[in-house]
Amino acid sequence: MADLPGLLRGAVADERLALARLLTAIENDAPGLRELLPQLFAAGRGGHLVGITGPPGSGKSTLVNALTDEWRRRGQRVGIVAVDPSSPYTGGAIMGDRIRMMAHAADRDVFMRSMASRGELGGIAAATWMAAAALDAAGYDPILIETVGAGQSEIEIARLAETTVVVEVPEMGDEVQAIKAGLLEVADLLVVNKGDRPGADLAARHLRAMLSTAGGRIGRKPPPIMLTTATSGEGVAALADAIEAHRSVARSPQEAPARARNQVRRALAELALRRASQHRAWDSTLQSVSDGELDPFMAAERLLGEDDMA
Amino acid sequence: MADLPGLLRGAVADERLALARLLTAIENDAPGLRELLPQLFAAGRGGHLVGITGPPGSGKSTLVNALTDEWRRRGQRVGIVAVDPSSPYTGGAIMGDRIRMMAHAADRDVFMRSMASRGELGGIAAATWMAAAALDAAGYDPILIETVGAGQSEIEIARLAETTVVVEVPEMGDEVQAIKAGLLEVADLLVVNKGDRPGADLAARHLRAMLSTAGGRIGRKPPPIMLTTATSGEGVAALADAIEAHRSVARSPQEAPARARNQVRRALAELALRRASQHRAWDSTLQSVSDGELDPFMAAERLLGEDDMA
Repeated sequence: MADLPGLLRGAVADERLALARLLTAIENDAPGLRELLPQLFAAGRGGHLVGITGPPGSGKSTLVNALTDEWRRRGQRVGIVAVDPSSPYTGGAIMGDRIRMMAHAADRDVFMRSMASRGELGGIAAATWMAAAALDAAGYDPILIETVGAGQSEIEIARLAETTVVVEVPEMGDEVQAIKAGLLEVADLLVVNKGDRPGADLAARHLRAMLSTAGGRIGRKPPPIMLTTATSGEGVAALADAIEAHRSVARSPQEAPARARNQVRRALAELALRRASQHRAWDSTLQSVSDGELDPFMAAERLLGEDDMA
Repeated sequence: MADLPGLLRGAVADERLALARLLTAIENDAPGLRELLPQLFAAGRGGHLVGITGPPGSGKSTLVNALTDEWRRRGQRVGIVAVDPSSPYTGGAIMGDRIRMMAHAADRDVFMRSMASRGELGGIAAATWMAAAALDAAGYDPILIETVGAGQSEIEIARLAETTVVVEVPEMGDEVQAIKAGLLEVADLLVVNKGDRPGADLAARHLRAMLSTAGGRIGRKPPPIMLTTATSGEGVAALADAIEAHRSVARSPQEAPARARNQVRRALAELALRRASQHRAWDSTLQSVSDGELDPFMAAERLLGEDDMA
C-alpha cells in the first residue's frame, strides 16, 4: 500500500516521481485516498483551474500546446489533466493528443497526466478533481483540465473548472451551433480556432449574434469570443490574457456561488453512488430494479438509507 | 393540499382531470409525493417506456406525431412526456413542438404533458420518471419521453427509457457525427429522418460505417439505422415495429441489468441532492466552497452525513 501522506509531501516538495505516484493512486482510487483528502486540499496553493473542451477536430490539443508555450514564456508552471473519454468513438482523437503533448515531455515545469475513465462507479469527475488538487499542491498554475466535449461527462468535468474555455471550429453552420448549445452555456470564453480559414470570421459573427439573442434570456453577459490560429500562435497571447483576466471574475462574489453549487451537486452524485455501491443490498436491489419489481427512486432511497450499511 | 392517493385512484380509473392534477403535483413536487411513490409504482401496468431525442431541426416532433398516428391506428393509447429543456437557446424549438402536438388534443387516447425544468434542485429526471409512471398507471402504452438532445440532462433523461430512439438529420457530415457520439452511444434505434432529402442515404451509410467500426470496441451490436420521412409517413410503421421489437430486448436478462444500474445511478444523484439541500448546513457549506475554504467533495461528505439533519 502506497504511503499517500508521504507521496503528498513529496509532491509539495516538487518531486515529480512522488507526484506521478500520487496521481496513479488517485486514478486507481487507492485505499486511504479518502482519508488523504483533507490534507490534499489543505495543501492547495490557489492555482487557477482552467477547463478546455471542444469537439474532435477543433484543434484543441494544438491550442493547449500553444497556450502552454505562452505560459512557459511568462514563467508559469503548467499542470495538465487530460481526461480520456469513456467513448470508444472518440478514442482516436485523444490518442493523437497524447502524442502531440510529448513536445513538453522534457520540460520540468510542465506536468501532464492523462486520466482514463474507470466506468460509472469509478468517479472520473472526482478523480479529475483530486488530480487537479494534487497539481495545485505541487505548485502548478494554471492547471488545465482538457476534455473532448463529446459527451455529458466531459461537459460536467469542464464545469468543475473556474474558467471554462470552449473551442469551436469555423466550418460549422447554424444547425450545428444549436447542437452545441449545451457547450456554449458552460463557456466563460469561446474560441473560434483556425482563424486563418475562410469561414472563421463568419463563424465568430454567427456565434456573436446567437449569444446576444440568447444573452437576455440566460441573464448573464455572453462570453467573449476570440479568434486563434493555434498552428501559427496568432491570438494565443490574447487568449492567455483573457483566461488570466477571468480568474478574478470566477472568484468574485457574483460568480463563485453558482460554480460552488454546481461543484457540490456533482460531488454529491459521486459520493452517493460510491456509498450505495458499498451497501450490502446493492446487488439485490439492482436485480429488483432490473426485474421491474422496484423503481429506481425507491431503490435509491433504500441504498442511501442510514440502516444496513455494509 | 391535493389528495394524492385520490388523484392516483382517479388516474387509474382513466379520469383525465385526475391524471392532469396528479401530473401537476409531480411537476410541483407537492407535499406527500414521496409517500405516494410506492403506490404510484405499484399501480404500473408495464407500459413500454420509449425515449425519443434528437437535435433541434431533426424533425423529431413531426416524427413523434406520425408515430402517435401509427400507434392510434393500432389501437394503442399513447402517453407523451415532453421535457422542456432548461436551455434558453433551444426554447423556441420546443414551443413549436407544443403547438404541433395540438393535432392530438381532441383524442382521449393520447395524453401529452410538457414538463418544464425546475432547475438543478428540482430533479427534472425524477419528475419525468414519476410522470411516466403516472401515465403507465393510467394505462397508456407506449409512454414516450421526448427530449431535445442538446444538453447532458436531456441525454440522461432519454437513458431512463427502456428503448431510446435517437433522431438524426441527413445533412450532417463526418465532423458532426463525432460530436454526437454521446447521443449515438445511448441509442437503441437510430433514425435518419427526412428520408426524401438527397443526403439521407449517404448519411445512413456514414452512420453505418462509423457504428460498425466502433461496434467491436463498445462490445455490443450497433443499433439498427432506419430511414423515415415523417411528413409523408414513410418508414414510420417500420419504426413503430422496431420500437415494439425492442421492448422484449430491453427486458431481457442481457439488457435489463445495465439499464437498471444507470437508472439507479441517476436516482441516487437526485436523492443525494435533495437530501443535502435539506441539510441545515447547506447554505453555510456552499458558502465555504464558494469562498475556497472547503472542497466540493468534503462538502458532499458533510452534507450527506448521518448527523445534523434538519
